[in-house]
Amino acid sequence: MSTAELYASYQTKMQKIADVKYASAVLQWDQETYLPPKGNDFRGQQIATLSEIAHQQFTDKAMGELLVELSSREDLPASQKRNIQLSSEDYNRNVKLSSAFVRQLSESVNQSYHAWAKARKENSFSSFEQPLQQLIELKKQEADMLGYEQHPYNALMNDYDKGLTVSKVDSLFDELKPQLLVLLDAIKNKNNVDDSFLFQQFNKDDQWKFGIEILKRIGFDFEAGRQDISLHPFTTNFSSRDVRVTTRIDEHDFGNMTWSCLHEGGHALYEQGLPADQYGLPLGEYCSLSIHESQSRLWENCIGRGLPFWQHNSSLLKKSFSDQFNNISPEQFYRAINKVAPSLIRTEADELTYHFHVIIRYEIEKMLIEGSLQTKDIPACWNEQYQKYLGITVPDDNSGCLQDIHWSHGSFGYFATYSLGSLYAAQLFATIESQYPSLGEDLANGNVNNIQQWLKKEIYCNGRYYSSEELCKKATGESLQSSYFIQYATKKFSEIYI
Amino acid sequence: MSTAELYASYQTKMQKIADVKYASAVLQWDQETYLPPKGNDFRGQQIATLSEIAHQQFTDKAMGELLVELSSREDLPASQKRNIQLSSEDYNRNVKLSSAFVRQLSESVNQSYHAWAKARKENSFSSFEQPLQQLIELKKQEADMLGYEQHPYNALMNDYDKGLTVSKVDSLFDELKPQLLVLLDAIKNKNNVDDSFLFQQFNKDDQWKFGIEILKRIGFDFEAGRQDISLHPFTTNFSSRDVRVTTRIDEHDFGNMTWSCLHEGGHALYEQGLPADQYGLPLGEYCSLSIHESQSRLWENCIGRGLPFWQHNSSLLKKSFSDQFNNISPEQFYRAINKVAPSLIRTEADELTYHFHVIIRYEIEKMLIEGSLQTKDIPACWNEQYQKYLGITVPDDNSGCLQDIHWSHGSFGYFATYSLGSLYAAQLFATIESQYPSLGEDLANGNVNNIQQWLKKEIYCNGRYYSSEELCKKATGESLQSSYFIQYATKKFSEIYI
Repeated sequence: MSTAELYASYQTKMQKIADVKYASAVLQWDQETYLPPKGNDFRGQQIATLSEIAHQQFTDKAMGELLVELSSREDLPASQKRNIQLSSEDYNRNVKLSSAFVRQLSESVNQSYHAWAKARKENSFSSFEQPLQQLIELKKQEADMLGYEQHPYNALMNDYDKGLTVSKVDSLFDELKPQLLVLLDAIKNKNNVDDSFLFQQFNKDDQWKFGIEILKRIGFDFEAGRQDISLHPFTTNFSSRDVRVTTRIDEHDFGNMTWSCLHEGGHALYEQGLPADQYGLPLGEYCSLSIHESQSRLWENCIGRGLPFWQHNSSLLKKSFSDQFNNISPEQFYRAINKVAPSLIRTEADELTYHFHVIIRYEIEKMLIEGSLQTKDIPACWNEQYQKYLGITVPDDNSGCLQDIHWSHGSFGYFATYSLGSLYAAQLFATIESQYPSLGEDLANGNVNNIQQWLKKEIYCNGRYYSSEELCKKATGESLQSSYFIQYATKKFSEIYI
Repeated sequence: MSTAELYASYQTKMQKIADVKYASAVLQWDQETYLPPKGNDFRGQQIATLSEIAHQQFTDKAMGELLVELSSREDLPASQKRNIQLSSEDYNRNVKLSSAFVRQLSESVNQSYHAWAKARKENSFSSFEQPLQQLIELKKQEADMLGYEQHPYNALMNDYDKGLTVSKVDSLFDELKPQLLVLLDAIKNKNNVDDSFLFQQFNKDDQWKFGIEILKRIGFDFEAGRQDISLHPFTTNFSSRDVRVTTRIDEHDFGNMTWSCLHEGGHALYEQGLPADQYGLPLGEYCSLSIHESQSRLWENCIGRGLPFWQHNSSLLKKSFSDQFNNISPEQFYRAINKVAPSLIRTEADELTYHFHVIIRYEIEKMLIEGSLQTKDIPACWNEQYQKYLGITVPDDNSGCLQDIHWSHGSFGYFATYSLGSLYAAQLFATIESQYPSLGEDLANGNVNNIQQWLKKEIYCNGRYYSSEELCKKATGESLQSSYFIQYATKKFSEIYI
């Protein structure tokens, strides 16, 4: 067969596997948004079957042979060659796990998820413990099957950001921690800002409309996506032409929905920007979760918690919530949305203390996977760490170790990408600022075109062509540095906390 | 292997195939309710892939061998034996179609569906013609592959009601037509009833809440299902624990949503009543589309267009729409919702003229499949038939041959089950009435327990154990007779049209 024919056969196979994976994603989206409660058990089974099929098809011997053959062809164009390289890497990783194991994992995730939801209702870790322990055992087995150097946790982090290691993350966090503590210490001695007006009553429907409008203003295409309500905001997609975000609305907390819209919106713009003609192929997929998170944090924080964005959107704010914001200037609003204070909930944390939320989970996960922490000891360890890093007492499990959904999903190795995303975001944003000196002015005029074009060119259109590190270097001229975030934060918070 | 082990292996295989089919149903439900427009193409591809996989897995040689082996085992309990029998019949039918053909059909359906939606927008059949013609060619091929006696249309009707034939349907319709014409003729000479109050302005949110309440009152379990909005009301399910109905709301037509809720609600009660422990197996599936339709028509018409039901629900009606219904008595309401008049749209037709809508489509389909009518000639033929049977002029394609979604779905052989469903419903209802003489009184008190229990025992819990004919005989003592419907209609309409 000619190379072109072989490649076409590879593409068809990959697209069919993508069809199954995306079908599974639709079932999961539905589970979080619209599934009636009694449908849970069969839904878990349906998702497990699709996971098993997708894994079987991708790890099929014929697929392996096709990839080997295509790897040997010299006449592949560069982008096709890169797809084959990446698929071969994925293949070699995936064949280490049996389809039965993948199904077992999927079923264990389903049990854990429901146990977690139950534990949340009871506000007690206890009924989550057993299923979680089983899941952790499976994740340890997974790490062993995948193989690793130095630390089993490396094998799991690789799922979210290829090449990421404990030693890299440790050294970044070791750099970050003391500098964050200096910043936090300085703030502690200043008068805190007043953000009480963000906690008035905000009508749900008005918030919903406001969120939709904000999504439109940052460029979310509602012809190729939608927003719905779920318990925990997330972004998913079933092609780059169907990207879905969810949000939640708290009538007494303006920020709860607004920053989820901006955060998930940032993720969604990335997915909508991926090349549709690469559907099912690596070059149609996002680079890594760290880079994905850089996109959400860029829109949520660098832009969405910046003064220029709210100078432009102040009139929308006052039109939507005239009673609440009529006498609030953009500057007051800007200070309020950037209030720094240690708190219990990661997703509601300010940009500085946020990293400690991530570091605590990262440390706990490492210990769970290496076996130096037992599942039953999670709550005690969690509460101790919050006291140590943030100086706060965790009153109950819902405000503590039950707050995040990730462990119930089996997503071990994920959390570090949240902090890395913030660091990448700061570095990318600094580059955009340096290339467009009028950026602040543009944002104050509601013009996000330059940012959109830059992200499209430097990030979106590359798919998985480059690794996180390579992409960062290509886009910013340097590999990831924590200094950009520290500079950004120092400038911002020393202005706010004079 | 022991028979029990073999059966367990069969059950596991069947459940996994069901997982894939139900996943496909979720994707289709989403397509009709929430899919953003640009997601259409990839969605079509995803559904086609799932159809292909489900077909491949079910027609796998190993499945055939397993079924043969199980068929030879004498020690199977009766219900398991029946599952094996039915699965063997399904298998023998399905292996006649290749997976590639199933995929081609699914893709053709996707194209036709979008062409139909486009044609609806343009109110012109022309852009639907080509894709429809291709689809009809495939359906003819399908009939040939499946094999048939006497008429190719028999092969297609079998998909919806096993054993149904052109000669059976023709003879039922030949019986029905003159009797309907006599009834219609008698009505034509009476003063028509006043239903103008059903066409006032009805607030959308109030209608939505009213519909949900009506669904609850007939026994729809919202823990095991939900209602959403779609262009065309339908019922689907992803297990008996997750059954979804959709509706549409017309602010100027009270009946549009209300009877869709009762109709789809009747379908949904059937699905929710099927045995969950038979998930994925024939005994967990509905008997036939004719019987399915009997359930929707029973709740929509025999109950939902009956006086006792509205005697009970009159207070809800007046509470929900006090301005519109304050001065309307249950008797006035009952007469209005049973107004008989030839009309253009099947789903809005009265119980009598409804059958002509079905007969017209049935006749056209037979001709299309036998090749005596060309696709391009559908609009002319349609309009001629409406003139002939109902004496009305079709003003445009949207009110004519584009009104139903079925052809765009490739559902040829389906329509007759609508009329059969009405006939079955009348026969079942007559039996229930004879067994519970207080039925009218019960309904007037809002008590639907006896009906629910009877349907559960006689219909729901049997799954596919009996054929339509057998089920009817077992439940009513007789095979299907058009006389029950004629008696029901004669009594009802001679009371209304005095």
